Amino acid sequence: MSVNRQITLAARPVGYPKESDFNLVEQPIPVPGPGQILIRIIYLSLDPYMRGMMDDKESYVRPIPIGELMVGGTVGKVIQSNLPDFTKGDIVLGSLGWQEYAVSSGDGLRKINPQIAPVSTALGVLGMPGLTAYFGLLEIARPKARETVVISGGAGAVGSAAGQIAKIKGCRVVGVAGSDAKINYIVGELGFDAAFNYRSVENYYKVLREICPDGIDVYFDNVGGPITDAVLRLLRPKARISVCGQISLYNLEKPDFGPRLLPHLLIKQARAEGFLVSQFADRYPQALQQLTDWLRAGKLKYREDIVEGIGNAPRAFIAMLQGRNMGKQLVKLAVP
Amino acid sequence: MSVNRQITLAARPVGYPKESDFNLVEQPIPVPGPGQILIRIIYLSLDPYMRGMMDDKESYVRPIPIGELMVGGTVGKVIQSNLPDFTKGDIVLGSLGWQEYAVSSGDGLRKINPQIAPVSTALGVLGMPGLTAYFGLLEIARPKARETVVISGGAGAVGSAAGQIAKIKGCRVVGVAGSDAKINYIVGELGFDAAFNYRSVENYYKVLREICPDGIDVYFDNVGGPITDAVLRLLRPKARISVCGQISLYNLEKPDFGPRLLPHLLIKQARAEGFLVSQFADRYPQALQQLTDWLRAGKLKYREDIVEGIGNAPRAFIAMLQGRNMGKQLVKLAVP
Repeated sequence: MSVNRQITLAARPVGYPKESDFNLVEQPIPVPGPGQILIRIIYLSLDPYMRGMMDDKESYVRPIPIGELMVGGTVGKVIQSNLPDFTKGDIVLGSLGWQEYAVSSGDGLRKINPQIAPVSTALGVLGMPGLTAYFGLLEIARPKARETVVISGGAGAVGSAAGQIAKIKGCRVVGVAGSDAKINYIVGELGFDAAFNYRSVENYYKVLREICPDGIDVYFDNVGGPITDAVLRLLRPKARISVCGQISLYNLEKPDFGPRLLPHLLIKQARAEGFLVSQFADRYPQALQQLTDWLRAGKLKYREDIVEGIGNAPRAFIAMLQGRNMGKQLVKLAVP
Repeated sequence: MSVNRQITLAARPVGYPKESDFNLVEQPIPVPGPGQILIRIIYLSLDPYMRGMMDDKESYVRPIPIGELMVGGTVGKVIQSNLPDFTKGDIVLGSLGWQEYAVSSGDGLRKINPQIAPVSTALGVLGMPGLTAYFGLLEIARPKARETVVISGGAGAVGSAAGQIAKIKGCRVVGVAGSDAKINYIVGELGFDAAFNYRSVENYYKVLREICPDGIDVYFDNVGGPITDAVLRLLRPKARISVCGQISLYNLEKPDFGPRLLPHLLIKQARAEGFLVSQFADRYPQALQQLTDWLRAGKLKYREDIVEGIGNAPRAFIAMLQGRNMGKQLVKLAVP
């Protein structure tokens, strides 16, 4: 293969992205200059935050200009190196975008040891999603043993890790997810205490009240919207809400209205806090060690949903935004 | 006077309370038994939290049963004592309700030194409202010098104290209040840096954006509703919202809807936290000492809006809920 296939942003989406909002373009494989390395990307990560970068509005992410390469986390293999710190064959984690090859000065790359776990986990349970679950749960929400923890997006890459960490900490964990298969997975395989499929339930509040008769101490929110509205009505005094994502709102064409939430915080002396995993960057090494230990001990499980070929990335991304993936969504671009 | 006039709850209000939701009843002045004291109440405090107690729904306050005495903080004078710790003439702070006389076992009473400040301040700037401002600002919101602090209900008993404390801490303070007289008061007399009258402004967001061009670091919210919606759009990264009250919502006949707020917390990594002043009860003595020092140094000013006679309490309470008071709302029942 002598071309580098890339996915660029063709148009700003209205509502859910369409495949026509992306372009597949072919470029020559770049040639690394002095002080550069050439990387062949093995896995591209697809994550909800990317939806925000497709819009041209203020967020915690910077908009991608029209015509530019889509941003994304990657695991790749060094195939040519003009840098002393990198050797051909090294596996590296970086944010190299939706493409098959990239040159890099090495800045922002981290070498991955393929002996520890499959290299794809550096984009999932041992990567940004796992770290997001770890810090969002333990540092923002700070659950205590025997507390009730509700997790929306409970079968997603972040939510499934957050729920398992809460179980490790002795909590009662309730998941919300969007298919019976996901419910079976998080309860049957991951050990959540209870879960419900929000697509087959009319009244979230009623179901949650039955599952959480003593109320909710911690809410790890990936979703927002009506699920969150129902959870807020069931908070216990001094409850904590970790605002990790609001995926149900990312694809709305106009701002959504809902019942006001601050009265719940007032009445329950509760706290809601947004965060970015990067604010904990100085503590990544210890957190990754802990996540690795849990993974090896069989306490932290994960699934991956892998499509093959860069051309399928847009379709897989759209499906993920609609909750049609099962586990961490990856695009495989080369053999590891 | 040989009767004890009381105000009881006649009916649960629909929307704003009406005078007919209260009853004025006459009882014999109670006779203190062994281990009791008789108190003549001098000042009754009227506070927004009482509105919640008139409803029959879950809140941080317990509903007052129909026909029962309205709950309220009081300052009174001991006129008969069968307790060694209290002497005729002592001034005591307590929660003795909307009435002219009360007997007490002394539990929950605190003696007030009338040499320190007028005894009415024990219900205001040196009482629950002052403590609420102190802890809600310094412990929940934790402003730093040069940060921009916005205070809704900025001319109220709590808001005016919170704003002055933020000024003492070196912040830039912006108040929101409901009359030009209140705006003149908080800017001209209390030293707020800026303020606007929400009743004479169409677009709160536009005005706030002009007054706070660099965004808002801290929001001390007494009001909720559309003012809060506008503030949330202007948060700076790592902003903190102290959820002290939501008075704009207390008198609505059905739950209010508004733009969803959690996306703002997510995007700005911001924190919103409700609190009750009582969670800081073990630190009241130090806080009261600090408030007293500021008061004596002229750094903390206050106003009182005093009506006379228990029969006027319902009307004054309703007016306060509508923002028609100016300063701490009190009912004077006897000469100090």
